[in-house]
Amino acid sequence: MKPHDTRTVQVELGERSYAIHIGGGLLSRPELIVAQLVQKRVAIITNPVVGDLYLGRLRSALAALDVAVVPIVVPDGEAQKSWETLNRIFDELLSHRSERRTTLVALGGGVIGDLTGFAAAVYLRGVPYIQIPTTLLAQVDSSVGGKTAINHARAKNMIGAFYQPRLVLADTDTLGTLPDRELSAGLAEVIKYGLIRDPAFFAWLESNLENVLARKPEAVTYAVARCCELKAQIVGADERESGERALLNLGHTFGHAIEAGAELGAWLHGEAVAVGCVLASRLSQQMGLLGEADVERVVALFRRARLPTQPPAFGAARYLELMGVDKKIEHGRLRLVLLQSIGSAFLTAEFAQASLERVLEGREDAHASHG
Amino acid sequence: MKPHDTRTVQVELGERSYAIHIGGGLLSRPELIVAQLVQKRVAIITNPVVGDLYLGRLRSALAALDVAVVPIVVPDGEAQKSWETLNRIFDELLSHRSERRTTLVALGGGVIGDLTGFAAAVYLRGVPYIQIPTTLLAQVDSSVGGKTAINHARAKNMIGAFYQPRLVLADTDTLGTLPDRELSAGLAEVIKYGLIRDPAFFAWLESNLENVLARKPEAVTYAVARCCELKAQIVGADERESGERALLNLGHTFGHAIEAGAELGAWLHGEAVAVGCVLASRLSQQMGLLGEADVERVVALFRRARLPTQPPAFGAARYLELMGVDKKIEHGRLRLVLLQSIGSAFLTAEFAQASLERVLEGREDAHASHG
Repeated sequence: MKPHDTRTVQVELGERSYAIHIGGGLLSRPELIVAQLVQKRVAIITNPVVGDLYLGRLRSALAALDVAVVPIVVPDGEAQKSWETLNRIFDELLSHRSERRTTLVALGGGVIGDLTGFAAAVYLRGVPYIQIPTTLLAQVDSSVGGKTAINHARAKNMIGAFYQPRLVLADTDTLGTLPDRELSAGLAEVIKYGLIRDPAFFAWLESNLENVLARKPEAVTYAVARCCELKAQIVGADERESGERALLNLGHTFGHAIEAGAELGAWLHGEAVAVGCVLASRLSQQMGLLGEADVERVVALFRRARLPTQPPAFGAARYLELMGVDKKIEHGRLRLVLLQSIGSAFLTAEFAQASLERVLEGREDAHASHG
Repeated sequence: MKPHDTRTVQVELGERSYAIHIGGGLLSRPELIVAQLVQKRVAIITNPVVGDLYLGRLRSALAALDVAVVPIVVPDGEAQKSWETLNRIFDELLSHRSERRTTLVALGGGVIGDLTGFAAAVYLRGVPYIQIPTTLLAQVDSSVGGKTAINHARAKNMIGAFYQPRLVLADTDTLGTLPDRELSAGLAEVIKYGLIRDPAFFAWLESNLENVLARKPEAVTYAVARCCELKAQIVGADERESGERALLNLGHTFGHAIEAGAELGAWLHGEAVAVGCVLASRLSQQMGLLGEADVERVVALFRRARLPTQPPAFGAARYLELMGVDKKIEHGRLRLVLLQSIGSAFLTAEFAQASLERVLEGREDAHASHG
């Protein structure tokens, strides 16, 4: 894809506004990065897998524009969203005497983005950072909107900050090296956007899913850009999740419970979100909001995206316990994002406990699809 | 002191504005706290010393207004500004299922305030908090303005956030139990405010220092309130320290070097700041800004406040090394807050290295005053 095919989405947050550029070849356009630097000095945080593929290219491109680069490579995996890894990053920054004007650059997926964003939020009480997401999940979701976090031993993303990047560069060429399973996991968040607030986009996905799965540049760029537009609208209206932004958590309360209850790393985040969206749809159906046919459309699209749609058999009691430490709890009552229809989500604490338990037991469908 | 003697200073920061109440008996006025709660639930973070003195009183006062209280007692001392202690706080909050609407309350000195403020900044990506400072240092400085932090093994306050409290309650009665040495340490910051931007306040201190040392309520409340007014003006104009707020660091670059170079805990922060202010005055004198008589006024006032005025003999090279990891470094050049005159500070990178080294060697005065 040529540079002129780049799409740009603006996140409007007053003095914290920034651009998301989406398209092919962006890693070779360091001038987009340099325009955002306060000083020609960056620390690039990445992992060995992404680093081997893209760090050299990004480094040379930046060096050609006289940008000093400190690379910081941390191991791969969700377990790295920890105090220990964060402290390793601080050690490296301190040993290179990184100052308030040094910009941190996250080159990688959601883990690298969350970790780097939180490091930037708290190092010297805040330094600038740029997101260069290299997975579909990170491009459509975690790199946009400033939610940063690390995990606590007892719950995911418990410790973090709302802290906006200066720029997001989503180079869709990097999706070419993404394993199929991770592409599918990213598609779970893509489908989620359609479910939350864009029935036309949901229908577009029903017509174009195979083109996205085949990584056709036009389809991928459209899908990523549409998700970023939807997220930018939501974040622009509610940066700190006091209202509408909570809708982005569709499927996430269930999903986090699955991730927390299973062995660490057994489920990809997107896989758990896919099941979570299905559970939210089923509970919405129990409440008479969605019809059987709607639920089948939801399940069918996730399946075509090669995603699981059946919850692991933890039992309702264990699910409720796992969901009890969720951040969205208020006044001790569990709140969930449910669906009025495909394309319209809402947040509510009004649902029957029996319906919830029935859905958590997976009683509607006895055929597990996740191995 | 009766409630009607309370002074109130407003910190103007748009939607993050808040009040500082200063006076006697405030711990027995829980309605001031309740007015700021989103939910009648607080976690009070304190240490054993302050907890023994004041936790019971505060807890009963809040309980009488139906506020649920979770007390979290962490050990005393600067070493507690660590990941480990922060994680202990998160563990307690999680085990009590503290939600986004639970307010954290810092009951203690600077360590408790910095730790609690940072915990509030990052727990669930941000929960409300209230400062109840019980030391002079915390009342005039660390509890106001939203600077929160923990230490890194290699440098103080390296990891933190700008995160404003909802309310500051400075009960001057709590200073009655403060050890003399800590009262003096707090006075270092009080004198600093006069040096930075209020020559009349500096002169008031020259006339009234003994009344403050004797903890006369009227003098103490006036001094605390004047410092809070000055800090509120500065923070209101420059919340994130991009300009004027840096002047509050008068004496702190030198002071942090002293704290970092000496054995942990050997110097109180205020003691190091006192020496730092003297060093800044001497360097300003070397540059022809302050006269010998001005420097003598500065030294004399710190001495009357029973504070050290002579730097430990680390040698200039070690000082420069210790100052090299300071947050205020920009483009690799050391910047310092110096004095144009008593009551007028400025930030500069323009000073002769030889003058700095001469001052760091303490060559002006061979008589050490710190044991």
